[in-house]
Amino acid sequence: MKLDALLFWGLENIRYLSGFTGSDGALIVAAGERVFLSDFRYEEQARGELAGAAFRKYRKKIEGVARCLKSMKVRRVGFEAGALSFESYAKLKERAPRVAWVPLAAELAGLRARKEREEIEKTRRAVRVASQSFGDALGRLRPGPREMKVAEALEIRMRQRGAEAPAFPTIVASGPRGALPHGRPSEKTMAKDELVVVDFGARVDGYHSDETKTVLLGRPDGRQKRIYDLVRRAQEKAMKLIRPGTSVRRIDAAAREVISRAGYGDYFGHGLGHGIGLAVHEPPTISPRGSGVVEAGMIFSVEPGIYLPGWGGVRLEDLVLVTDRGCEVLTYLSKELKDNIMGGGR
Amino acid sequence: MKLDALLFWGLENIRYLSGFTGSDGALIVAAGERVFLSDFRYEEQARGELAGAAFRKYRKKIEGVARCLKSMKVRRVGFEAGALSFESYAKLKERAPRVAWVPLAAELAGLRARKEREEIEKTRRAVRVASQSFGDALGRLRPGPREMKVAEALEIRMRQRGAEAPAFPTIVASGPRGALPHGRPSEKTMAKDELVVVDFGARVDGYHSDETKTVLLGRPDGRQKRIYDLVRRAQEKAMKLIRPGTSVRRIDAAAREVISRAGYGDYFGHGLGHGIGLAVHEPPTISPRGSGVVEAGMIFSVEPGIYLPGWGGVRLEDLVLVTDRGCEVLTYLSKELKDNIMGGGR
Repeated sequence: MKLDALLFWGLENIRYLSGFTGSDGALIVAAGERVFLSDFRYEEQARGELAGAAFRKYRKKIEGVARCLKSMKVRRVGFEAGALSFESYAKLKERAPRVAWVPLAAELAGLRARKEREEIEKTRRAVRVASQSFGDALGRLRPGPREMKVAEALEIRMRQRGAEAPAFPTIVASGPRGALPHGRPSEKTMAKDELVVVDFGARVDGYHSDETKTVLLGRPDGRQKRIYDLVRRAQEKAMKLIRPGTSVRRIDAAAREVISRAGYGDYFGHGLGHGIGLAVHEPPTISPRGSGVVEAGMIFSVEPGIYLPGWGGVRLEDLVLVTDRGCEVLTYLSKELKDNIMGGGR
Repeated sequence: MKLDALLFWGLENIRYLSGFTGSDGALIVAAGERVFLSDFRYEEQARGELAGAAFRKYRKKIEGVARCLKSMKVRRVGFEAGALSFESYAKLKERAPRVAWVPLAAELAGLRARKEREEIEKTRRAVRVASQSFGDALGRLRPGPREMKVAEALEIRMRQRGAEAPAFPTIVASGPRGALPHGRPSEKTMAKDELVVVDFGARVDGYHSDETKTVLLGRPDGRQKRIYDLVRRAQEKAMKLIRPGTSVRRIDAAAREVISRAGYGDYFGHGLGHGIGLAVHEPPTISPRGSGVVEAGMIFSVEPGIYLPGWGGVRLEDLVLVTDRGCEVLTYLSKELKDNIMGGGR
């Protein structure tokens, strides 16, 4: 059954397909015609940004979109089911009862997965801004300061270095708090000999970076060294497998096996990685429950971790770009333990 | 038809009803029982934050929620239709085919509209952080610097003063760019005698502020003064009407009439205001298409504007708290023209 048009509701796909970078609107893609719809607030911006799409203004979004579908004589429309709320769907259907509404989800999942040259360049810039800012904030990574001061310094430097915003709220989790994979920076002061998990990223021109360093504020004891090395080996093992055609499950399994064999399988409770681009989390999903293979041009994270309640955690995260023969690691800060011992403990 | 439970999917309502502040999960509210569900990453955080809700961990969200509904013997569930995507709805329905799914939208709209004492206090803190930061960044508001440098300075100061993040991307639009209601700060340098619209806010402890100043970098000419005063009068007129029981349309109309009578009705293309709290935009909607009356405890913006293509714009935005007899203006920076002439033009 042929679709007459596709309706996009999510800002990332709208930006990807039309060039519009604002924060409200809808995009209808039909054979030979693209119409972007938004309200008064975005009219001038849209007219300046749209590439290959006409602009149409609405007062009320649902009514405007329904009217536009009607004027375009659309009978069957495929819609972005992951971005449209049930409420908006129900209202659209009520306003355009003659249109057949076909939900699209898996069909659209791959839309932005393979990055174009320009997207790769923007991601590199985001990585650079974040990495340089991490370097600027290094002075705070020592026993004494509170976790939140590290996050604050990092985020401020990213903004000063040209990030539009942090890619996500920076994670700084020291000592036992490192066992929280998403530990928000707290008032806790960082102490000597603690591991500190720092997960950070920048957004530049709409594209995101994402990277995790685990640093040690002192000399590593046996367990710290063992677990750090294990996570690092898991990461390297997975990276070696990455090339066009390798299944996402196999990549995840490669890292997971290293950790499981050492007896820590239960403490690596999340997937190995996620695609990144206009969204921080997007396809492909590199996990035991993912599907499909990786392809040249994909950018995703490789981020094994071990989280031990009461003790702390280690996570190492890099972004890789799948190339024709393997992968390139885009995040260039060292993940070797010896390069991550700081705060006077060297 | 009685509902056995409510399913919340949006992070603001989840936070409001359970205390969980992380970024993924679902909340089921049944008679005498609240269950918050999330994955491994948020387990420790959830156990620490949840007030009056039990925690249940899932590996896959849809399956976890469906299983939980089943174990709670829920037959009819009302769900947050504005927050659940069509895709998630369809998957949930597939996994829990015996459950009747009842979309709730208008029924939930008022849930967070009346603020409690603690919420008002958090909003005041957000206002304070943003206002003080505006003061810190004043030095940049003069002929010469680029718009984006004002936004950068403001956002950095907000972060330093304790904001978790800006409430939204700061708007700085000078001269003719002021005609874009949502003008993103650009590389344009601000020039003498230009009006500059600055729309900014901070997020503190989950709560947002939102305020717009329009400053003049020089001496006002006749038109600038006329339009500024008009917007200011429209704002004051609306504010005078605000008290419990006044309809949102009447409040909007009061401001709109002032502007329309002076012949600028077509250049005020957006609603007068929006509620604010855990979300930057939430009920009530103060617009010609809004419905209902305002009630004590509501916090919303009052932000008339006039946008003239080619010339520029003026928008003045304050947040008000509806009190028993009227309203209190929470944003305390002056919106009088004489207090907004800067950059040596005084």
